[in-house]
Amino acid sequence: MNQSRLQPDRLRTEEAHRRIAAYIHRTPLLSSRNINQLLGAELWFKCENFQKAGAFKSRGACNAVFSLSEKEASRGVCTHSSGNHAQALARAAGLRSISAHIVMPSNAPAVKVNAVKHYGGIITFCEPTLEARESMLSGIRETTGAVEIHPYNHPDVIYGQSTCAKEVFEDLDVQPDIIITPVGGGGLLTGTCLSTRIWAPGTLVMAAEPEGADDAFRSFTSGVLVPSENPKTIADGLLTSLGSLTWPVIRDEVAAIHTVPDELIVQAMKLLMERMKLVVEPSAAVTLAALLKMHQNPEGNPFRGKKVVLVLSGGNVDVSRLPF
Amino acid sequence: MNQSRLQPDRLRTEEAHRRIAAYIHRTPLLSSRNINQLLGAELWFKCENFQKAGAFKSRGACNAVFSLSEKEASRGVCTHSSGNHAQALARAAGLRSISAHIVMPSNAPAVKVNAVKHYGGIITFCEPTLEARESMLSGIRETTGAVEIHPYNHPDVIYGQSTCAKEVFEDLDVQPDIIITPVGGGGLLTGTCLSTRIWAPGTLVMAAEPEGADDAFRSFTSGVLVPSENPKTIADGLLTSLGSLTWPVIRDEVAAIHTVPDELIVQAMKLLMERMKLVVEPSAAVTLAALLKMHQNPEGNPFRGKKVVLVLSGGNVDVSRLPF
Repeated sequence: MNQSRLQPDRLRTEEAHRRIAAYIHRTPLLSSRNINQLLGAELWFKCENFQKAGAFKSRGACNAVFSLSEKEASRGVCTHSSGNHAQALARAAGLRSISAHIVMPSNAPAVKVNAVKHYGGIITFCEPTLEARESMLSGIRETTGAVEIHPYNHPDVIYGQSTCAKEVFEDLDVQPDIIITPVGGGGLLTGTCLSTRIWAPGTLVMAAEPEGADDAFRSFTSGVLVPSENPKTIADGLLTSLGSLTWPVIRDEVAAIHTVPDELIVQAMKLLMERMKLVVEPSAAVTLAALLKMHQNPEGNPFRGKKVVLVLSGGNVDVSRLPF
Repeated sequence: MNQSRLQPDRLRTEEAHRRIAAYIHRTPLLSSRNINQLLGAELWFKCENFQKAGAFKSRGACNAVFSLSEKEASRGVCTHSSGNHAQALARAAGLRSISAHIVMPSNAPAVKVNAVKHYGGIITFCEPTLEARESMLSGIRETTGAVEIHPYNHPDVIYGQSTCAKEVFEDLDVQPDIIITPVGGGGLLTGTCLSTRIWAPGTLVMAAEPEGADDAFRSFTSGVLVPSENPKTIADGLLTSLGSLTWPVIRDEVAAIHTVPDELIVQAMKLLMERMKLVVEPSAAVTLAALLKMHQNPEGNPFRGKKVVLVLSGGNVDVSRLPF
């Protein structure tokens, strides 16, 4: 692909923030003395689990939907997703009174299907393969004229996600040493890189990724974009590959990607519920899991004694089937 | 007993608030459009589940401990409790570097025993009867000279709890129609009555109580203090009887007490986790359970269309044994 790399762009992030402000929560930063003591660091948790539709995805979806011209918007939007982007896009489209066509795999859990329906999304089911999803989506685009809003490989989505880190740096009265986010397709991580360059240039951006879906880590280590193949992890929001827009920024701007086993993800989820009374999904707990792992690391802990912001990316989990 | 009724006392509540401010969180008020739509009312949840030691009890315990003279404090404090007051008192005593003697029943769950130990409490176990607890506590008072801090029938504890509603009325920019709290021994409810008279005299104070521990409801209905006998409910923080200090205020100031079945308490806990990503204990969920019940009430719903504050009193629940 021949796209120029996305750049830190203060005006574009500020514009995105103004555009979506009425439709999203400015989520709180919470701390726990207990967890600070446990890990020997000073932590702030950015609670995107409290975000509208339960995840940061509402930022990017709202920015993309409300950036469309009247003409573009008139035929609605479409995407393929079985996760938080589907809900966020259905909700954003509803707020603009346009239709959202969502392609979901036929094996998507009922709870996710119902959430998209709740926000008024028009669902088309397909076989659970990437080929089937793309071909179905392509058919819908042609039939309806709807604009595709990709879950992460879309500039307006990425600048929308960049408002999350902007809020963090505005709300903290110190500059943190590190900000760490989960990485799946890389939309949140890329947005975080862009805002950090502007609002906290001395802060390192790190990412956390499940060991069973470590394509970003392998790409980062090898310097070549490696797609996700047969990922297997409890963190079902982090199965996707990096995209052509997210990979170059991540490659150039991220200081480290930490991979974590599922058992630490589960332990982190439980710790957040017990000590902070927060419900988060596995994909969000991966950041705290990275700190738990490095706390045990015999070769040193890059978080020790540091001021660290952890983005809790979402809270959409079936609470009657918690993994502990 | 020949005690004069506790009165609304602006200075005393303000003084309590200043005394404890460094040791407690000013907890947030959160809302959910989703739950508002579900119940046809405008709700704010006061998140005492985020409070230090996981419950509002830290307010009263800190106020009582830090109100003691040097001489009184020198021999420590004591109480009998297996619940949140035990943790809160152990923590408050630790903050003042004095000892806390906690009498706990021998069948108290390990998770609660460990929490008290974590805060440095000195635990004495006794048989799980009221007689055994009182006789053990009396022995400890005589041996150590420690000052007893009752979980709710204590003026400094009650004025400490009154700071919770004060924060609510200061932080809301509208005056709510109703504020509703759980009722067990009545410390939080009484404190809420006292602050409401001062900061929001037009607001009705209501309470929610489990059907299986409905002594406050029966007292309120009959006009005579009825003790709790063989209570049976999942809301393990609401088993106690009203006290000589809490009952007269509740009798005179409360507008209604709503009793709720355990199944609605469980449903409310689940709703708070799913929709608001909040972990609360059953005793806290009883307020939302009351709204769920009245929403179905064929004879009318006193909450319909109203502005209602619900106090989520605590979040100490074993997250690996959730009741759903």
